[in-house]
Amino acid sequence: MFWELLSTDGRARTGIIHTDHGDILTPTFMPVGTQATVKALDSRDIKEAGASVILANTYHLHLRPGEDLVAELGGVHQFMNYSGPMLTDSGGFQVFSLGAQREEKEGAAANKVKIDFDGVNFRSHIDGSEHRFTPEIAIEIQHKIGADIIMNFDICTPDSATFERAREAMVITHAWADRCIEAHKQKGPHAWKQFLFGIIQGANHEQLRRESAEFISSRAFDGIAVGGESIGYNMEMTATTLDWIADILPEDKPRYTMGVGYSPRDIFTVISRGVDMFDCVAPTRVARNGTLYTRANDTLKLNIRNAQFARDTEPIDAWCDCLTCKNYTRAYIHHLFKADELLAFKLASVHNIRFMLKLCEEIRDAISQKRFIEYAASWGSFI
Amino acid sequence: MFWELLSTDGRARTGIIHTDHGDILTPTFMPVGTQATVKALDSRDIKEAGASVILANTYHLHLRPGEDLVAELGGVHQFMNYSGPMLTDSGGFQVFSLGAQREEKEGAAANKVKIDFDGVNFRSHIDGSEHRFTPEIAIEIQHKIGADIIMNFDICTPDSATFERAREAMVITHAWADRCIEAHKQKGPHAWKQFLFGIIQGANHEQLRRESAEFISSRAFDGIAVGGESIGYNMEMTATTLDWIADILPEDKPRYTMGVGYSPRDIFTVISRGVDMFDCVAPTRVARNGTLYTRANDTLKLNIRNAQFARDTEPIDAWCDCLTCKNYTRAYIHHLFKADELLAFKLASVHNIRFMLKLCEEIRDAISQKRFIEYAASWGSFI
Repeated sequence: MFWELLSTDGRARTGIIHTDHGDILTPTFMPVGTQATVKALDSRDIKEAGASVILANTYHLHLRPGEDLVAELGGVHQFMNYSGPMLTDSGGFQVFSLGAQREEKEGAAANKVKIDFDGVNFRSHIDGSEHRFTPEIAIEIQHKIGADIIMNFDICTPDSATFERAREAMVITHAWADRCIEAHKQKGPHAWKQFLFGIIQGANHEQLRRESAEFISSRAFDGIAVGGESIGYNMEMTATTLDWIADILPEDKPRYTMGVGYSPRDIFTVISRGVDMFDCVAPTRVARNGTLYTRANDTLKLNIRNAQFARDTEPIDAWCDCLTCKNYTRAYIHHLFKADELLAFKLASVHNIRFMLKLCEEIRDAISQKRFIEYAASWGSFI
Repeated sequence: MFWELLSTDGRARTGIIHTDHGDILTPTFMPVGTQATVKALDSRDIKEAGASVILANTYHLHLRPGEDLVAELGGVHQFMNYSGPMLTDSGGFQVFSLGAQREEKEGAAANKVKIDFDGVNFRSHIDGSEHRFTPEIAIEIQHKIGADIIMNFDICTPDSATFERAREAMVITHAWADRCIEAHKQKGPHAWKQFLFGIIQGANHEQLRRESAEFISSRAFDGIAVGGESIGYNMEMTATTLDWIADILPEDKPRYTMGVGYSPRDIFTVISRGVDMFDCVAPTRVARNGTLYTRANDTLKLNIRNAQFARDTEPIDAWCDCLTCKNYTRAYIHHLFKADELLAFKLASVHNIRFMLKLCEEIRDAISQKRFIEYAASWGSFI
């Protein structure tokens, strides 16, 4: 069995996902290792932070070093020396968001992303070379990379999409979902089992979200993801979206909101709505700018570069038990950032990741003890 | 007792230095942690690489975060969470070399270093602010920083110095040496004992080097260092200098060549001439450019960025037992460098440091078993 439900408290739930690379206790935050490395951390750092599943990125690994090389070297786990469960997204989000970023900077002509019903052409952000993803190609690449959980190839519609445009993208996404399931019947080069998740799209339109939830839920996916620009980025819309589709999602599959975890409080929003998995680049990205999570103030974060921390002998956070908080003072981390030292990135990233994962551990305990609401309230989160 | 001689093999020797933060087995390479951090490594990484003593830099810590703050936070060990023995250089080398660098880039007027018989004025490389070091100030700063071994404040003469100029600098350095000894009779703010080393100067002039060796050896220093632009940078001149002063150096004090360790083979040159300690930024600096030490070829290094390593499943070096070599392939490290990933710096730095330290471990064994020459020859080093 892939997924077991362990306990519920309201709509929040705990569970366990079984993979050939180990079990994943849910709900859990999934640290992002875009290029087969969680930035600044080695695999021991990741494990010690309490991660049970990490992400890698199909788009990035396809461009560099290429899925054939990853396969030849034994798959992504062996490639990056990470023995635990892994997940790859399908590359859809990167193809569209990097195209949109180029459009924003250099005008519409620079957005080289061309969608047709069969697939999408795009340019590499590294060297401008032309590439094409279809559902079949995206699955084949993910087979070669070898993550335990892989994602269907989808079109991630911007929030600004009209109903018609969002509907068109959704219809294509659904057709691609079936093609991904078909393509996944082929076996990849690796010995372990790979599980396929479908992705609900539909932008910010209730009718489309429900239609997409119905469709994805009706198919033989191992798990159900919710994608889209607003998910994680706009937490009010994320909550609304999850409420729209709440009565449709099957109880017996894990649920994954893609891109949630900008702030520790965000995860209460999705867990309270029955979500089991979520990932976000923010904890490590903001860490590299010196923004560190803490319970010491209501914003749940501090900027360690601020002069007030220069002589501060406290750990970043008294509740946190990460390598950084157990061994280093705010004053030292402040110094590392001011002195542009590489160690700053590691100590900051370890902390933000452990902070999220310890929070998930305590949330799992709270759910299993039916005190999730009280626990959420203790974080100033009123669901 | 500060220093014990354990064994000799020709002029090479093994020994042990006792400090309040632990023992140092010699000969040993000392990793450099300029700003109270060995770049990209946390304190566990440093210990696991086998370091027993590391350096920090008086000039850099004086400018940022300032010695008073380091003292207030319990000294440099506690500041950076490193419990082993530490050494600070006196800042002399940085004052003069950073001034010379500015002169090279922007012309003579940009070199704001002004020496008088009492001390030296210089500008901060960070913000251009004016500072002054005298022997008394340099010792007071080092007392506050709190390293186990501190250095006398000296003038590091460039190789190009005429006999007259080198002699003048040496005479001042000797006067400062006596003032440092006097200043060191004051006790710093920390509880542990700090040992003071003198520095032999004299540039590339035999008469001056011998005169300086006589002078420094005659004073109540705990150890004897050899400084100068050529030391470490020009290994032929380093060897010649050590040969010039060989019959002068006392047997009962540890000897330290400042700046030696650009290449693994360099350390045979100094150890064979009775040197016990040496430091160099090169192992970590070249690591960050992808230059990694290996016994796999005669140059003892490889550039991991080269395309030939893209599919190479071997460790960087089969002999090395560092975290990187035990866990990661050349292909993965190649990928991290090509993808500009932060983890590249850590994995590369850990390797180069462990490589030097394991080499020192084997050299100590070889000396104590009277087979140093054979061991050196096995590294292609003919002393």
